[in-house]
Amino acid sequence: MQLGFIGLGKMGSVMVERLLGDDHNVVVTDVAADAIAAAEKMGATGAANLAEMVEKLEVPRVIWMMVPHGAPVDSVLAELRPLLSKGDVVIDGGNSYYKNTLTRGEMLKESGVHYMDVGTSGGLEGAQNGACLMIGGSQEDFDMTESIFQTLAMEGGYAHVGPPGAGHYVKMVHNGVEYAMVQAYGEGFEMLQNSDYDYDLHQVADNWSHGSVVRSWVLELARDAFQADPKLEKIGDEVGGGSTGEWTIQASIDSKTQVPTIYTALSQRYATRRPESFASKVIAALRNQWGGHEVIQK
Amino acid sequence: MQLGFIGLGKMGSVMVERLLGDDHNVVVTDVAADAIAAAEKMGATGAANLAEMVEKLEVPRVIWMMVPHGAPVDSVLAELRPLLSKGDVVIDGGNSYYKNTLTRGEMLKESGVHYMDVGTSGGLEGAQNGACLMIGGSQEDFDMTESIFQTLAMEGGYAHVGPPGAGHYVKMVHNGVEYAMVQAYGEGFEMLQNSDYDYDLHQVADNWSHGSVVRSWVLELARDAFQADPKLEKIGDEVGGGSTGEWTIQASIDSKTQVPTIYTALSQRYATRRPESFASKVIAALRNQWGGHEVIQK
Repeated sequence: MQLGFIGLGKMGSVMVERLLGDDHNVVVTDVAADAIAAAEKMGATGAANLAEMVEKLEVPRVIWMMVPHGAPVDSVLAELRPLLSKGDVVIDGGNSYYKNTLTRGEMLKESGVHYMDVGTSGGLEGAQNGACLMIGGSQEDFDMTESIFQTLAMEGGYAHVGPPGAGHYVKMVHNGVEYAMVQAYGEGFEMLQNSDYDYDLHQVADNWSHGSVVRSWVLELARDAFQADPKLEKIGDEVGGGSTGEWTIQASIDSKTQVPTIYTALSQRYATRRPESFASKVIAALRNQWGGHEVIQK
Repeated sequence: MQLGFIGLGKMGSVMVERLLGDDHNVVVTDVAADAIAAAEKMGATGAANLAEMVEKLEVPRVIWMMVPHGAPVDSVLAELRPLLSKGDVVIDGGNSYYKNTLTRGEMLKESGVHYMDVGTSGGLEGAQNGACLMIGGSQEDFDMTESIFQTLAMEGGYAHVGPPGAGHYVKMVHNGVEYAMVQAYGEGFEMLQNSDYDYDLHQVADNWSHGSVVRSWVLELARDAFQADPKLEKIGDEVGGGSTGEWTIQASIDSKTQVPTIYTALSQRYATRRPESFASKVIAALRNQWGGHEVIQK
């Protein structure tokens, strides 16, 4: 089918390639002219800006947005909204906070524009070979756009999980699970690394990947990481990210749900980004005062 | 090759079947006579007791022990030890604490008997179709017994990870990771269940199993559980187990390693087994005293 595609970053450009490969007619735009040119070479129709993209689309238009969450999404929607017509469908395929998705959907509804949210998982490999798509939106909008998901997802990898917001909510929780899951592996491999045995962590990760209870795709990534760098000597111990973990914790407060490992995994990331722990300094100072325990002087 | 096999429980009997299917000559014994009879029907040589089993094995003997960890292992070894000869190899394929494994190995060494430890993962399905085996022992003993592991493991699923104790240590850490990993999924699905959306958890688990970052074998088990019982209404919320998690925490104390999600997952299990939380009663009582906050009277 015909669709507009906004955002030709790492994920977006690979997704456009996959759409073109399945005979969709894709009208693309991006802030970077060279990204548009590259997509045109793959067979996409280029548009210099949102207005030109909208003009080249037949009504009702279907437009996939693949831009960073937060301000970029709002900025695109602010410019897009006056250009659209009643019955058009805008899909946010990015990693937006579901509450923002709900607000944006309400705003677009005033113009009769439909809004869908699609959580996309699987990373670049997924975008290339078939992603996992968690789709929120009305049944009608889902039916109208399903062939897009069929193309972008791996077989069995897309699901219409509920009304608007439901897709991004599931993706948020998915990421929360991911935080705790990678923390679990991190702790396990550190246990092995700190043990009295001289383990080959690549061997263990590879072994666990063959039939163990903890086998997973993430574990296979760990195996590859240990193959490339057996003691991870080239990798710093600071961990980035955090938005989806923070949203999960916020949502857990909203629904009064206990998520201790997800919160722990998030807060462990915070700790990695501080050069020293103030809490630990407080504790050292107090132990020094009550028991005369030695304090490392700086 | 010829080997003795002690313990024909759920795991043991399936493993013996797999060994027989690959033309090993297996002399089996168990405390239950009917289990021996069943193994004989599959082609094993039955032995009424340990002495008879030892007698039927050619030296140097190789004996696989598949009995519950703790006292049963010690009891078997106490009876077995005087029956064995120098150069015999005993393999503990069960879930023993690695420190006990080291002690037992030292004890057998006095009689010249070699001890190996094999952590076995993958559950019943793994025992049937090929398990994941984490093997500790000397290189010499590993070379002598490797054909057993080739048969029992799935392709690529066995690894000689280090000297005696190293196999059970890796299996312990594997289980610690497993605790935190299943806790992560538990928290995620509870987030979905407690949300404002009416999710079909089977659909979500199935969706995540197709290309998402959190895809894993455990997630596929969750998908199957939700298919059988969409809201898990037939499942109580008490979680059993705990030994390997406790050993992991003990080992983390020994090596001074921070494993917060593994500890959280373990302690969450403890909470599920108490009808009420005394800590929560304390907190309710204190809030009542300082702020007059309501306390539920029993």
